Amino acid sequence: MNKKVGLLLSGCGKLDGSEIHESVVTILALDRAGVEIVYMAPDIEFTVANHLTCEDTNERRSTLIESCRISRCEIENIENIKTSDIDALILPGGFGAAKNLCNFADKDADAVVHPYVEQLILKMNEHSKPIGAICIAPVVIAKILGQKNIKLTIGNDITTASAIEDMGCTHVDCAVDNIVTDHANKIVTTPAYMLGPSIKDIAMGIEKLVGKILSMT
Amino acid sequence: MNKKVGLLLSGCGKLDGSEIHESVVTILALDRAGVEIVYMAPDIEFTVANHLTCEDTNERRSTLIESCRISRCEIENIENIKTSDIDALILPGGFGAAKNLCNFADKDADAVVHPYVEQLILKMNEHSKPIGAICIAPVVIAKILGQKNIKLTIGNDITTASAIEDMGCTHVDCAVDNIVTDHANKIVTTPAYMLGPSIKDIAMGIEKLVGKILSMT
Repeated sequence: MNKKVGLLLSGCGKLDGSEIHESVVTILALDRAGVEIVYMAPDIEFTVANHLTCEDTNERRSTLIESCRISRCEIENIENIKTSDIDALILPGGFGAAKNLCNFADKDADAVVHPYVEQLILKMNEHSKPIGAICIAPVVIAKILGQKNIKLTIGNDITTASAIEDMGCTHVDCAVDNIVTDHANKIVTTPAYMLGPSIKDIAMGIEKLVGKILSMT
Repeated sequence: MNKKVGLLLSGCGKLDGSEIHESVVTILALDRAGVEIVYMAPDIEFTVANHLTCEDTNERRSTLIESCRISRCEIENIENIKTSDIDALILPGGFGAAKNLCNFADKDADAVVHPYVEQLILKMNEHSKPIGAICIAPVVIAKILGQKNIKLTIGNDITTASAIEDMGCTHVDCAVDNIVTDHANKIVTTPAYMLGPSIKDIAMGIEKLVGKILSMT
């Protein structure tokens, strides 16, 4: 039986959904490792950002439908995912992690996480199943599991690192080609496009993250 | 000076734009080779496909704006691109190549190509600059340069191969991990998701295509 890893998407695009390069590099690393990928997203509407002007619009789209662009038409509503369905879970970055999966983008350390996202991450942690989070996505983990003083990274951005510490975690500065691992809680994080600068750089960290996550399953 | 390679996008998503995995795997291979990528798209509206239901909708979006999701907010209108700006050009696949860059999806061998796309590809060929085309995108090249009896591949789909031969080209069956090269015209093609099945398979062909294209610049 192949291992199964859940990929939690939040749309399709760095400004309002899952960062596309981070998602695809993760998918490639998982596929090369012979892993079956279980794509999932919450079913919510989000505010569309015009990726040419970098400005928010008045348009609304669905995270579930837009995430299917990255997953090639295959997705589960996270509401229907049980921890027994997957051996590990990975969250790519992109601003969707901070504004669709939770409202960290507006509320910082006072953020509220989408209930089905919170429920799955809590249960994965209870069952000692590893969780990877890329770029800005560690803020979702920090908010849910902050009381456990988890060690994680979003690179070296002082404001975000400070919000993560406010949520009860320990932030560790990390280079783009590396990972931070909290062995006790099986949480692995990498900065990716929080640092960049380019896809070859973020790929090094993400490939290490995927390798570490699979070694923990 | 780094080499510059143009990446011609047609939106963001396999059913109505550029196939995301093919695009990102190409970007990763180019970046690892130290190439500067010049992202471009035509400025046209396209009909949106819902990637969850796989059905067309009544909604319209812009190829230029949606392509920026893949390119991370950086794009040129193809109208403004000169052959002197780039050393080579690559077209990822996705149904956008067949319905936004041209209307092959509706017209088969009688397709008409977007005028600025046609102009750039004709001039690249006149200047002996290499062109790569992935998945279904070789139909765009076939329509523009068919009178030159170019050798190319879209895998082994009989209907599409037959339309390509109707446009004056020679179709060569090819495995997903391989490429077909027309040395005289510097055209390199690979089947990618015309065959699949998965991203690790298409990556092998695309990496070979990028290597061959760069060796010809």
